[in-house]
Amino acid sequence: MSAAIDFYFDFSSPYGYLAAREIDALAAKHGRIAEWHPVLLGVIFKETGMAPLTMVPLKGDYSKRDFARSARFHGVPDFRMPSKFPIASQAPARIILWLKETDRALAVRVALALYHAYFADDIDISAPENAVAIAAKEGVDPFAARAAIDDPAIKDALRGETERAIAAGVFGSPFVIIDGEPFWGADRLDQIDKWLATGGF
Amino acid sequence: MSAAIDFYFDFSSPYGYLAAREIDALAAKHGRIAEWHPVLLGVIFKETGMAPLTMVPLKGDYSKRDFARSARFHGVPDFRMPSKFPIASQAPARIILWLKETDRALAVRVALALYHAYFADDIDISAPENAVAIAAKEGVDPFAARAAIDDPAIKDALRGETERAIAAGVFGSPFVIIDGEPFWGADRLDQIDKWLATGGF
Repeated sequence: MSAAIDFYFDFSSPYGYLAAREIDALAAKHGRIAEWHPVLLGVIFKETGMAPLTMVPLKGDYSKRDFARSARFHGVPDFRMPSKFPIASQAPARIILWLKETDRALAVRVALALYHAYFADDIDISAPENAVAIAAKEGVDPFAARAAIDDPAIKDALRGETERAIAAGVFGSPFVIIDGEPFWGADRLDQIDKWLATGGF
Repeated sequence: MSAAIDFYFDFSSPYGYLAAREIDALAAKHGRIAEWHPVLLGVIFKETGMAPLTMVPLKGDYSKRDFARSARFHGVPDFRMPSKFPIASQAPARIILWLKETDRALAVRVALALYHAYFADDIDISAPENAVAIAAKEGVDPFAARAAIDDPAIKDALRGETERAIAAGVFGSPFVIIDGEPFWGADRLDQIDKWLATGGF
């Protein structure tokens, strides 16, 4: 097994959701493992002076259409834009960072459940109680999950993830870095596949 | 043969070049014809308050890397970033609009030759004499081409193309509109293929 590939995502990112559903299988196909890095796009945007796509004139309207069409294209027909968007993603991100420490598979399962809750069931996962309830359905202890959200060490860990992501050049979600090569967007999954298959092209 | 699909592009757009190389075959595969619309991204950006990708912090550096990698991915290994970028694309755009009036096939051939001159041979096609020389190599009368660049009617036609593009929601290059459905970017060619195959998904 070679080195991990780095997968950066924000829970408020529709394209992040589409990539999250595929990244583990894509990595495994090429004998790699994806390391999941939940990050805060709000902090990254502040640092880089960018704005959420949906707030950019013209691109905003297009992007909402493209989110849904891209979701259908990627086999996610139950995608729908949440009524509250974008959201601050501290609560779900902290749960995942906490779970990752002890159980990678569970962390990924809960991450996908959180994404699905937000982008299919219109549940506001920025609310700690909602994020905890989703995790609990996957078998996570709800009291421990709630404590993790408020744990100063986990808060620090999320700040650290986001700072390291910025230092690594991450400016959007999803963002994948493979042996130093950066790929931005769910629409680069095909290039990632070729990159992993060929060792770079 | 059903209705045309609309293909909008700027000669200064690397992703526009990649899409231009494929759009006719893609349309033909589904019994359609692409109508080529050269437009001025500079005017569109001014109208929409956007900036060229390469000038956006962080995204700029990434985009240069992604241009070249996407070119290799699309089978264009001789792509290289021109030393002057971006350029004003009035001269090549006007030649194409003028040629389109009488010979669509020639217009497409010259458009691809202009793109190749700029993105492979580093020829500054914003200079009328360079644009004319490229067209001449494809069999176009150089004196007529030079006159077309300064022809008030052709200038008006380009202004009209760009204004109609903005009115149709075009904010980038390449941009394709199929029966009212907008697709932005060379990375949407796969969705365009599926859209044309299925009649919409």
